[in-house]
Amino acid sequence: MENVQDQIQDMEQSGVQDESPALLTFALQVAYHGAPFCGFARQPGQLTVQGELEKALELLFRREVRTVCAGRTDAGVHARGQWVTFDVEPDELRGRTERNLLKSLNALTHEGVMVRAVEQRSAGFSARFDAQSREYHYHLCTEPTPPLFMGDFCWHLPYELDVDAMRAGATHLIGEHDFKSFCMAVSAVGKPTCRNVQEISIYEEEVLGEKLLTIKVVGNAFLHSMVRTIVGTLVAVGRGQRTPDWVADVLAAKDRSAAGENAPAQGLVFWKVNY
Amino acid sequence: MENVQDQIQDMEQSGVQDESPALLTFALQVAYHGAPFCGFARQPGQLTVQGELEKALELLFRREVRTVCAGRTDAGVHARGQWVTFDVEPDELRGRTERNLLKSLNALTHEGVMVRAVEQRSAGFSARFDAQSREYHYHLCTEPTPPLFMGDFCWHLPYELDVDAMRAGATHLIGEHDFKSFCMAVSAVGKPTCRNVQEISIYEEEVLGEKLLTIKVVGNAFLHSMVRTIVGTLVAVGRGQRTPDWVADVLAAKDRSAAGENAPAQGLVFWKVNY
Repeated sequence: MENVQDQIQDMEQSGVQDESPALLTFALQVAYHGAPFCGFARQPGQLTVQGELEKALELLFRREVRTVCAGRTDAGVHARGQWVTFDVEPDELRGRTERNLLKSLNALTHEGVMVRAVEQRSAGFSARFDAQSREYHYHLCTEPTPPLFMGDFCWHLPYELDVDAMRAGATHLIGEHDFKSFCMAVSAVGKPTCRNVQEISIYEEEVLGEKLLTIKVVGNAFLHSMVRTIVGTLVAVGRGQRTPDWVADVLAAKDRSAAGENAPAQGLVFWKVNY
Repeated sequence: MENVQDQIQDMEQSGVQDESPALLTFALQVAYHGAPFCGFARQPGQLTVQGELEKALELLFRREVRTVCAGRTDAGVHARGQWVTFDVEPDELRGRTERNLLKSLNALTHEGVMVRAVEQRSAGFSARFDAQSREYHYHLCTEPTPPLFMGDFCWHLPYELDVDAMRAGATHLIGEHDFKSFCMAVSAVGKPTCRNVQEISIYEEEVLGEKLLTIKVVGNAFLHSMVRTIVGTLVAVGRGQRTPDWVADVLAAKDRSAAGENAPAQGLVFWKVNY
């Protein structure tokens, strides 16, 4: 019979010899043009951003690689600074650097996806769970004629909007609230719907010489179609169809049908993630 | 025989009665996406911006209407603030206002053309001859990965550029010079090639979150492909292939083959015209 000391030694040795090698975690910063994709999330038989990334990773690593993202986006929504993480074993890298991975991923994915950065992170880092906050920008164009260069990236709404009223309405949404009224109904069933919105700024900017009205929304996390419903609700206020205080009523209703319309996907850009 | 007084009276009367009605001059501010068009200038059997505008005017006024523009642009070059003028007789308007004309023209032209404004001007005003100066913006992207949202509007050149050297090179081009070296050779034959360049500014800007390097060029008028040749020449300096003083040599050579390459059309936007 072995003594305790031997047992410990055996365990240590087996720990060294049999332990599977520590996984390496990589984070991808990803931009995409929303138009060609049926959203971020992988769906069988559909062109999706996650599907494109995982197909490329499968070719590189010769096995199925599952990815996690900072925030799933709907069909048509663009991203400038999405983050995606995945794990590989050290052997699987076969000497590839971050730079090699970046080039290969961009060569192997649809032209509407652009991997901007590949960075190794501490093991187990998650694009989703380690995100502190997410930032979205929504672009409106209120000029009489539609934008030409920015047409793919905004909602043309040729009406005068009362921006001060929109700002007043937005103040009701700042802070920790149950945003059930701002969540696509089918997605809200039986799930927590409290979120913390830290900032809603509304400002004019000129992009390639075309005037846009940008609504910047920052929060800890967002429900399904929450930013677009916030935008549709604020637009109802901006057009004078509703008062700014109505936004508080919408929030209190906890019912999607109380809110404004879902603003079109193409105006939305998933701008950045703060870790 | 009539006396002088009668003759004068006759002349005055005939002046009132027989004179064809004064023509009305209209100016259109026009934006277009360069990609679908074989340039601005009308060409039989080709999709052109002028062709689209004149086809629409012909439908509205039931006759051929000839237009004059502030500056012809090549295939693929975009415009934000092109101006186009044409004349009509008062009868031909049939009560249409500027607003009616704007709506009709946008309904009758290709989606890549957008008439931003219709303004009546003093009779005989010419978009071309009354222009005091023209402004062009050229957009480069020097990031390692290509722009996604701005891909249609810039030249991706993934190299570090020495912007100070480019600025130093550009100073040689300011003022009245013979720009023959910067004119597409076939267009320069037997025509005056002196132009006055008033400003060349080079600055970084972030457009929809993508970093661009913009070269703004203002001058009284421009030769065929002059802005794109200036850009290609300054890029050779920015990449360190040439010194800033080489730009003075290019100018002095009065030979297109002395200059840098013709920068791609899609990076260029005809930005505005000053009248």
